[in-house]
Amino acid sequence: MGSETERKFLVRSSDWKPGAVGVLYRQGYLCRQEARTVRVRIAGDQAYLTIKGQAQGLTRLEYEYPLPLAEAQELLEQLCLRPLIEKTRYRIEYRGRVWEVDEFVGENQGLVVAEVELKSPDQPLELPDWVGEEVTHDPRYLNANLVVHPFSRWGKP
Amino acid sequence: MGSETERKFLVRSSDWKPGAVGVLYRQGYLCRQEARTVRVRIAGDQAYLTIKGQAQGLTRLEYEYPLPLAEAQELLEQLCLRPLIEKTRYRIEYRGRVWEVDEFVGENQGLVVAEVELKSPDQPLELPDWVGEEVTHDPRYLNANLVVHPFSRWGKP
Repeated sequence: MGSETERKFLVRSSDWKPGAVGVLYRQGYLCRQEARTVRVRIAGDQAYLTIKGQAQGLTRLEYEYPLPLAEAQELLEQLCLRPLIEKTRYRIEYRGRVWEVDEFVGENQGLVVAEVELKSPDQPLELPDWVGEEVTHDPRYLNANLVVHPFSRWGKP
Repeated sequence: MGSETERKFLVRSSDWKPGAVGVLYRQGYLCRQEARTVRVRIAGDQAYLTIKGQAQGLTRLEYEYPLPLAEAQELLEQLCLRPLIEKTRYRIEYRGRVWEVDEFVGENQGLVVAEVELKSPDQPLELPDWVGEEVTHDPRYLNANLVVHPFSRWGKP
């Protein structure tokens, strides 16, 4: 398997939220380099290890493997870089496409982003009213960077 | 899952070798930090991803997961740190215990080490004649370090 093509936007209102049911995500990184990241994620009662390469435009290599839940918990507690990232993810359908809205908690409290996966970088995309500025190319919004530069500390010395 | 307890020795003769059949190993690292390493290994026609923690004495956390062979090849070619490590591993039985003898090639040509896994750090161990100095606690012999400081360049400026 191969690569993913994603676009990411800030969320500017909570119009997406009525009726939405979220899943708690808890994740950490074993490495977070520009050229490669290795992530451990617990999503609800499922766990995954995900390896990603460097973004080339909208696309990056991605490999994902299931992990036993108990081992994922050990990896997060004992081996992953600190702090961990915690967020609630909502899957919102809009005009036939699924948007993933992430509400961060902890040190990234206040940050809400929406991501959508595309088949190719030039695929047309209809934007819901509740998305604002596109941040696809802003590395500050990479989860791997939110670990070391959490949203709550942006703009502070 | 869990942890592994290993002792590692230099090999000082080839008395272990007659009749031994080896398997070619090709491996690389997605991260090689003191606190954690993530390794991709192809052993014959099998592939694995292995996560290890920092050694505490003879013991370290270790988690291993099978990988699809084609994806392991992609990870080695496209995402792992350079250079890759190549070696032939032989499994040699000696007095009821299996020793793994690694003959390195490429930039680590000339290095031959033998490892044995124990149930606990204080388990008694009978040494074969062909093992020499113990290097369990010498970090230069960690495969993760042989990537950046290969044996062929030791002692050179």
